[in-house]
Amino acid sequence: MTEQKRYPSFCILGAGHGGMAMAGHLALMGVPVSMYNRSEARIEPIRLTGGIELFGALEGFGRIEVATADPAEAIAGAEVLMVVVPANGHRFMAEKVAPHLADGQIIVLNPGRTGGAFEFVHVLEECGCKAAVTVAEAQTLIYAARSINPAQVKVFGIKNTIPVAALPGQATVDVVKTLRMVYPQFVPGDNVLKTSLDNIGAIFHPALMALNAARIESTRGEFQFYMEGITPSVARVLEALDAERVAVAAALGIRAMTAREWLYVAYDAAGKTLYDAIRNNPGYEGIGAPAIVDHRYIWEDVPMSLVPLASLGDLLGVETRTAKALIYLASLINATDYWANGRTVESMGLGGLTANQIRHLALEGKIA
Amino acid sequence: MTEQKRYPSFCILGAGHGGMAMAGHLALMGVPVSMYNRSEARIEPIRLTGGIELFGALEGFGRIEVATADPAEAIAGAEVLMVVVPANGHRFMAEKVAPHLADGQIIVLNPGRTGGAFEFVHVLEECGCKAAVTVAEAQTLIYAARSINPAQVKVFGIKNTIPVAALPGQATVDVVKTLRMVYPQFVPGDNVLKTSLDNIGAIFHPALMALNAARIESTRGEFQFYMEGITPSVARVLEALDAERVAVAAALGIRAMTAREWLYVAYDAAGKTLYDAIRNNPGYEGIGAPAIVDHRYIWEDVPMSLVPLASLGDLLGVETRTAKALIYLASLINATDYWANGRTVESMGLGGLTANQIRHLALEGKIA
Repeated sequence: MTEQKRYPSFCILGAGHGGMAMAGHLALMGVPVSMYNRSEARIEPIRLTGGIELFGALEGFGRIEVATADPAEAIAGAEVLMVVVPANGHRFMAEKVAPHLADGQIIVLNPGRTGGAFEFVHVLEECGCKAAVTVAEAQTLIYAARSINPAQVKVFGIKNTIPVAALPGQATVDVVKTLRMVYPQFVPGDNVLKTSLDNIGAIFHPALMALNAARIESTRGEFQFYMEGITPSVARVLEALDAERVAVAAALGIRAMTAREWLYVAYDAAGKTLYDAIRNNPGYEGIGAPAIVDHRYIWEDVPMSLVPLASLGDLLGVETRTAKALIYLASLINATDYWANGRTVESMGLGGLTANQIRHLALEGKIA
Repeated sequence: MTEQKRYPSFCILGAGHGGMAMAGHLALMGVPVSMYNRSEARIEPIRLTGGIELFGALEGFGRIEVATADPAEAIAGAEVLMVVVPANGHRFMAEKVAPHLADGQIIVLNPGRTGGAFEFVHVLEECGCKAAVTVAEAQTLIYAARSINPAQVKVFGIKNTIPVAALPGQATVDVVKTLRMVYPQFVPGDNVLKTSLDNIGAIFHPALMALNAARIESTRGEFQFYMEGITPSVARVLEALDAERVAVAAALGIRAMTAREWLYVAYDAAGKTLYDAIRNNPGYEGIGAPAIVDHRYIWEDVPMSLVPLASLGDLLGVETRTAKALIYLASLINATDYWANGRTVESMGLGGLTANQIRHLALEGKIA
């Protein structure tokens, strides 16, 4: 008889496509899993059937021990809380869990977009939470998945390498050690300034949506999002935006990868310009465009990625004209003020700080 | 024997599509016509053949008495100077004619875009021109035409009603009286604030180019510019931009038509929203998109229509965020700083003036 492997227990917060894939997969691996979702409608089928059926890249039925719309019940006893919702929902999740957190719990945002961990910690503090928890953010979501039926999810793929960083950065190694007991894909991502500012989706998604707005609406997305949606002029806008991201990172002492370098690292796609690198990326071939402009690529990426970038730029004296032009146009496109409901330095708890203080906060959890 | 009709003599400045159509048409009517063009290459075929051959909506050969790259020779003795070049060329034309102008000459910009007459007069002053001339601007170009061969031009249509305004507005009636001896289409357009701020092309062209940039480049314009290029989200951007134009006009005491009202007046296209009015305009059906983004709809309309609008807004304390976002994005799209080479209050000679002073200048030719 071999010794039974002891897994940490997980609570998945969010029963959307990604949350269901994660909960189902963890359960299949034999990890104790509970789930929370704001609306009863999505969680009830999981409770009734007793779990989640996976198909596609993963096959099987994962037993979910607790599936509930009660946050206290869901997170009680869980060692790791995986937040798997669009970043717009991070504030809500922080408010929901704040009264029920226990010392030692790890909270991971999958992903944090830009400034997720800062905002989550700030909301916990606002809520008067005293529990000694560690908040971390992943660079991206590990699963590509889609739930079509209740309690069923199709998994298209699992990413190989996901940097994750804790706030403070000193805790990153411990968080990664715990996550790797289950997920060898998680690797240490230095600190949250790095994960937040290496957010490449912020560069591609909103600009492509805005500069293809009419085509998306008039064809319902019937074109190739990257291969047709990025042309030399669009690539110039992407490069200007990317330079702003790299400049904000530099002002915080972070050397962020450029989008062009990222294409090389992530897809082995090289080119002298960003446009060339995109054209040389077979991974983009066949990827269609969203069918509507009121899409996550705007309503999540603009307020949760571009707004914090521009707001940090304002704080640090770095010009972010491209980000601001896109935030403004995206706001018109969807008739929503994304700056007003976006993640600013104030909502991240960074208002009035210097670059050095933000750096200290990211690395050590205190500003000096 | 009837008395021979006495026409004023015209000089056409610019031998592009519109200039050739105008020169040929005037000559066909029996009007004495001379022509000037900066480059010898375009003017030489006209000089060699002795005139311009028209086909399409107008047919025949119009004799051009003088066709030259020498501005002094071209404008000598002409009563009316018709400037028919993209607005980017107005400054150049003003500098070229300034030393050679004679008292009593009328100069008409076809069209002025926004602030054309202000800029032209300002450049004449900069050049030390003392001749008592009157500068006016037309709301739009009277011809739709295309020159395919040297000295030949195809005319697609002639517009019915073209408001024209002189600077000062007090001279508008006299200018229109002279123009109507040849062109019954010209009607009095109040003053140049009105013609400049009723520039509807400024609203449609740059925004449509930017929000369709990728499609233009990836299909080389193979789609319907208005019917497919304007969708509900694009129309929201157009409406925001249009509201800024109307607000700048209001700050100058001008009640500008909204784009929606203009669609109703120009095309009988009605609708509750701008989007509805556009969809209800059969005149837009079948109009294709430009094949490139480095097109007059950007390189003329952005620096010569949106920049003066935004610059006036800055001067008068009217916010023009949409105009500025589009100016900035268009600058990235074509890798050209359109603000730097655009028509600002300084280049229009309006720097530091109040709304009242600008109004006095437009109406009476002096600031108080």
